[in-house]
Amino acid sequence: MTDPTTLTPTPADRFTFGLWTVGWQGRDPFGDATRPALDPVESVHRLAELGAYGVTFHDDDLIPFGSDAGTREGHIKRFRQALDATGMAVPMATTNLFTHPVFKDGAFTANDRDVRRFALRKTIRNIDLAAELGATTYVAWGGREGSESGAAKDVRVALDRLKEAFDLLGDYVEAQGYDIRFAIEPKPNEPRGDILLPTIGHALAFINSLEHADRVGLNPEVGHEQMAGLNFPHGIAQALWHGKLFHIDLNGQSGIKFDQDLRFGAGDLRQAFWLVDLLESSDYAGPRHFDFKPPRTEDINGVWASAAGNMRNYLALKAKAAAFRADPAVQAALRASRLHELAQPTLAEGESLADLLADPSAFESFDADAAAERGMAFEALDQLALDHLLGL
Amino acid sequence: MTDPTTLTPTPADRFTFGLWTVGWQGRDPFGDATRPALDPVESVHRLAELGAYGVTFHDDDLIPFGSDAGTREGHIKRFRQALDATGMAVPMATTNLFTHPVFKDGAFTANDRDVRRFALRKTIRNIDLAAELGATTYVAWGGREGSESGAAKDVRVALDRLKEAFDLLGDYVEAQGYDIRFAIEPKPNEPRGDILLPTIGHALAFINSLEHADRVGLNPEVGHEQMAGLNFPHGIAQALWHGKLFHIDLNGQSGIKFDQDLRFGAGDLRQAFWLVDLLESSDYAGPRHFDFKPPRTEDINGVWASAAGNMRNYLALKAKAAAFRADPAVQAALRASRLHELAQPTLAEGESLADLLADPSAFESFDADAAAERGMAFEALDQLALDHLLGL
Amino acid sequence: MTDPTTLTPTPADRFTFGLWTVGWQGRDPFGDATRPALDPVESVHRLAELGAYGVTFHDDDLIPFGSDAGTREGHIKRFRQALDATGMAVPMATTNLFTHPVFKDGAFTANDRDVRRFALRKTIRNIDLAAELGATTYVAWGGREGSESGAAKDVRVALDRLKEAFDLLGDYVEAQGYDIRFAIEPKPNEPRGDILLPTIGHALAFINSLEHADRVGLNPEVGHEQMAGLNFPHGIAQALWHGKLFHIDLNGQSGIKFDQDLRFGAGDLRQAFWLVDLLESSDYAGPRHFDFKPPRTEDINGVWASAAGNMRNYLALKAKAAAFRADPAVQAALRASRLHELAQPTLAEGESLADLLADPSAFESFDADAAAERGMAFEALDQLALDHLLGL
Amino acid sequence: MTDPTTLTPTPADRFTFGLWTVGWQGRDPFGDATRPALDPVESVHRLAELGAYGVTFHDDDLIPFGSDAGTREGHIKRFRQALDATGMAVPMATTNLFTHPVFKDGAFTANDRDVRRFALRKTIRNIDLAAELGATTYVAWGGREGSESGAAKDVRVALDRLKEAFDLLGDYVEAQGYDIRFAIEPKPNEPRGDILLPTIGHALAFINSLEHADRVGLNPEVGHEQMAGLNFPHGIAQALWHGKLFHIDLNGQSGIKFDQDLRFGAGDLRQAFWLVDLLESSDYAGPRHFDFKPPRTEDINGVWASAAGNMRNYLALKAKAAAFRADPAVQAALRASRLHELAQPTLAEGESLADLLADPSAFESFDADAAAERGMAFEALDQLALDHLLGL
Repeated sequence: MTDPTTLTPTPADRFTFGLWTVGWQGRDPFGDATRPALDPVESVHRLAELGAYGVTFHDDDLIPFGSDAGTREGHIKRFRQALDATGMAVPMATTNLFTHPVFKDGAFTANDRDVRRFALRKTIRNIDLAAELGATTYVAWGGREGSESGAAKDVRVALDRLKEAFDLLGDYVEAQGYDIRFAIEPKPNEPRGDILLPTIGHALAFINSLEHADRVGLNPEVGHEQMAGLNFPHGIAQALWHGKLFHIDLNGQSGIKFDQDLRFGAGDLRQAFWLVDLLESSDYAGPRHFDFKPPRTEDINGVWASAAGNMRNYLALKAKAAAFRADPAVQAALRASRLHELAQPTLAEGESLADLLADPSAFESFDADAAAERGMAFEALDQLALDHLLGL
Repeated sequence: MTDPTTLTPTPADRFTFGLWTVGWQGRDPFGDATRPALDPVESVHRLAELGAYGVTFHDDDLIPFGSDAGTREGHIKRFRQALDATGMAVPMATTNLFTHPVFKDGAFTANDRDVRRFALRKTIRNIDLAAELGATTYVAWGGREGSESGAAKDVRVALDRLKEAFDLLGDYVEAQGYDIRFAIEPKPNEPRGDILLPTIGHALAFINSLEHADRVGLNPEVGHEQMAGLNFPHGIAQALWHGKLFHIDLNGQSGIKFDQDLRFGAGDLRQAFWLVDLLESSDYAGPRHFDFKPPRTEDINGVWASAAGNMRNYLALKAKAAAFRADPAVQAALRASRLHELAQPTLAEGESLADLLADPSAFESFDADAAAERGMAFEALDQLALDHLLGL
Repeated sequence: MTDPTTLTPTPADRFTFGLWTVGWQGRDPFGDATRPALDPVESVHRLAELGAYGVTFHDDDLIPFGSDAGTREGHIKRFRQALDATGMAVPMATTNLFTHPVFKDGAFTANDRDVRRFALRKTIRNIDLAAELGATTYVAWGGREGSESGAAKDVRVALDRLKEAFDLLGDYVEAQGYDIRFAIEPKPNEPRGDILLPTIGHALAFINSLEHADRVGLNPEVGHEQMAGLNFPHGIAQALWHGKLFHIDLNGQSGIKFDQDLRFGAGDLRQAFWLVDLLESSDYAGPRHFDFKPPRTEDINGVWASAAGNMRNYLALKAKAAAFRADPAVQAALRASRLHELAQPTLAEGESLADLLADPSAFESFDADAAAERGMAFEALDQLALDHLLGL
Repeated sequence: MTDPTTLTPTPADRFTFGLWTVGWQGRDPFGDATRPALDPVESVHRLAELGAYGVTFHDDDLIPFGSDAGTREGHIKRFRQALDATGMAVPMATTNLFTHPVFKDGAFTANDRDVRRFALRKTIRNIDLAAELGATTYVAWGGREGSESGAAKDVRVALDRLKEAFDLLGDYVEAQGYDIRFAIEPKPNEPRGDILLPTIGHALAFINSLEHADRVGLNPEVGHEQMAGLNFPHGIAQALWHGKLFHIDLNGQSGIKFDQDLRFGAGDLRQAFWLVDLLESSDYAGPRHFDFKPPRTEDINGVWASAAGNMRNYLALKAKAAAFRADPAVQAALRASRLHELAQPTLAEGESLADLLADPSAFESFDADAAAERGMAFEALDQLALDHLLGL
């Protein structure tokens, strides 16, 4: 039985929520809003009470699109007061480059040049606010950068424009001396038929081509990779391997379909377990950020129940992963599966390629048939993991 | 009506086939072989007659696993004679690191270190043969590098081993002075539950971390990306953008399911059209390589019909893509969709970021609502493409 | 080259459009409307000009939810006038049981009984209007009948409620003497995580359990089946085999992802070809109904271009399918593939099961290995089909 | 903590295994066998020791294809002795109509009529053996009934042949007086590009058209429905609703991809929980049959570990589901979500349709906006389920 105290979140757990998550009103492609608008100030207070560490926001979550300067300042002031009152942090911010119809063909890669210029300016304005509020990560989800038909977008040219945008934003942040890094959030599709930089891998590759590559990393989202049928912990492992896990969006998804944004733990529970196991054993020190949508069947009580569930599930999986790794039976099983051998370089210390080529045991006298008979013992190991997960 | 002569392949079209494609005997997870073994020498002759430019091979396609040196030389000699007799080229070769049970947990990332060493030696031996036969591309498909359960593979450590392998292979090729580049072939799953480097993007990112990054690129396969629901032409465009399209595997796939390896043109026909449009307008000068499986319903006549279909369909799409791009109505439609504006940098020549920030037309006086009213005219453009594809 | 006159739609082609298709304003899960509301009267006129035969509607498309009686009559009157002026028919109508938040947990299977009663009344009211306007098909898409979590819906009990609803609606239509049949439209997911009656098959099975089973059939939609990775023509063939294809929703979808509602011909073009080939060779005599969404990138000109494209593509595929079937080379290829043998009963005329059991040629002396050597010649046949599709 | 004694399987749990599951040698589309053949007699003994109730078989699992009569009798005799020695039952049998190349285009729907006749005879011969061994369920998986290309199979005609086959088999079983029912096993694809009767729904619909419909039901397999992205417990609920769950194949699958046949509990763990919850609360009294493949990474020890894991996981989920349903907090949450209202007919006892139409509270005075404000409280309910699953 997991100790109940380990399931109570505190700010030390670094749980954060987007204002747009609990604030989602339930408008979907086939239906109108099912919940009234939620005041960001209330969200800050309620999330603080639930044990969260901070909140994150799109510019338009806080300040309605097109607000005049005075209105804008009013919104920011009230938000700051709520942060001060609760001690909540704002570790990340991002730009809404998808709701207004002007972005219907994209923002940084819109065919229309004036839209691209507007998108850059809108982003820069919110980077200033992000810096003011102490955010150190600025997320870029290019949900509208894509197409539905083959000639509508020249992808190579669009990548030029995307690089141009990130290079300019990097210049800006550097010039301002902001302590801000960018985190690109990949997604394969929806709302566009196909989105540029569809997976963790594509975004990692793109980043390498940027002027300020060191300042740009990833904000992978559980459901987005799973919408392409990809193993999310595997993707995170590669992002960590490249030193590029700058932020993370935790939620749930039930397979390849529309973007569900279920609460963390719902959806693929086993991948959630391996994800927490990985994150907690890695050097990732950033927030555990929930980007979920409380289902539109829920009223406001359901919203807070759903929000709390994210944190509870993360903490439960964290405790289970720790117990799994500490279990002597698991350690023996890992050894039986030769994970320690995977950690050994293939060439021995001091061994050269020439030595390998000269080693008959590596080829000439290697008995492949005999070696093939060794079982990997993965099923026993996986059953131990399942036992821990189920609390058997 | 497409001119029939344009549909007849010649070596100038640079069509190549894997020996394992026409040679596939039809063994699948639920059934035994439906066709007898095909002599590689016969394949070379028949493919040459059909108009192909060359063939490619895994070591074990040509020389059965475990053959002694004399047998090996005999196989190579017969193969060389067929190449000489037909003028067929061998532009690419690769290693079979998946059929023998010794590779059941992977090759370069097998948990067992002796398997990794054997895999390196097996690969190097075939690189020597590839170089002898004039191949300039060496493909690496890591189909067994992956896992079915979460603890069975530490992905970060496995990527260390994968990098070690490619660094060593790069060292070797460089030391030998071979004119050979490596092309990694990504795949999301099958035969493993999840495979490392599952997409074009993940492989591109990985390559950036290699010692001999310049010598390593991609061999993307149509069906592999489509098994993850990804847009193949988009992936190829990004690979081209990074200068990493070293080779390509053409085939067909009907959506997210098991790996089908249909002939090129079967499966997603519209993506096939956009792919050919892209390849033919790019600087990709390598072979058009078919990696397909003639369905196991077919006898040997069906095998050759299927092989010929690949080339016919490529040539038909090539002619159609050229006609599409040359059509004045298409050019007007592209302009109406502002593709030319996408090609313009977002900052004007000589414009600085400060200039953009000082430009009120970019933000302060930008009328987003008015801009949003402009239609993109993509549907008219796409219908023109479909008209060309259908030959209307 | 297809004769251009065959590509011009006329009412004889029986093309119909939902008012909600051209009228879609482009609101999606991540963005606001990109187009102004479209007056149904204008839609009727413009679609008539384009060559359509009729329109279809949800109650709320024509009469905003909650309109008073007078307003309602006004809307209906204007609509009737447009129909009269254009000669457009209304062969089908349906109920909007998904947009208003009251339906957030379903309509006929909402856990709340008063919602179910309201849904029945709302439906019956619109059936009356449908009958008045001459519709003979009443579609039921239960998009909100489903769940996101395991305990939220007892599926067996929900099916009881769904049966109750269809039995009552059947009673009503019968009592009124309406010449109306119901057509259930299956969909696997979106907007609910999982929807009841997710495929053609599930709906066909359900119908067999209804009181008025003869009066209930299907309205399958191309994209809905493809969202489950299913072969749409196969599904339609089974629906036809059961005598249950009462109506059809034509559109396009690019694989397993969110519901795209592309224009017909976009998406999986080869399945579109086989679908038209099947429909035109079947006894289906109902409308060819387009349920598509002009992409939100389009302005109103793009809307009409997209609408016209649906019909053009259908007509092009129809001409091609006819040419395919008439081609002597195709007829020979079909024979080579033994389609005529599939049409022969497995037992000969007059042959009994006992005769089969007594026939040694069927088993004891059957040479399975020899029989297995016969090729099916499917690749040559499929290449002929592709040649016709591409207009080679 | 789950009581460990509840996790130990006994014959009373009715767990059965296919001989082909533990006997799978690990041959896959890209690799050779990794394990030696397993003697069915050994499987019977080992499974009995692990606590299984019985085994099931394809004809060719027990008696190699083409064995002569004497050899056949020998195999059967040894098998019977093992059954007698262990007390293991044989509740189900089935025919291998997919491995031999003669079935490359199908069995009951092969275009070649002699193949169809052979398939019927092969099936009938094994039905006799099934009856002899006491099996009461005869499974029919039509894995080869399908196609890869559009003209290769006329689906309507193929369904005629499929019906002919099942009608004949029903005639036979009836004539023999066997206590045997048929269970059709649907699958969407693999090994064929598309398979006939792709889902539970399609098979249920088909059964309604058979002569011996009462004698034919379903054998759904977890992974097969999940390969189409469908919710397996929902499918089983519909099968139960139709009274057609005759048998079940339990295993695991990680989303839409090739058929994985993971051990039960691996793959989608949450659906596994809801499945067991459903089965155990239903009137399904048949075997809990595992149709899984021990991964080819495993040696024989891994095979038995994997086999045992299936039963352990089922029992763990059964205990958890029982605890979930018994928990007063869950009962309150179900009530808060109004599951009891879903169980009430929509029309009150004695209420007529006319009464509903005359009830203003159902429509005229129904306040939809107010009703829409009620939250469904599904998130709290689902979190309780997750708490139980995780053993919190």
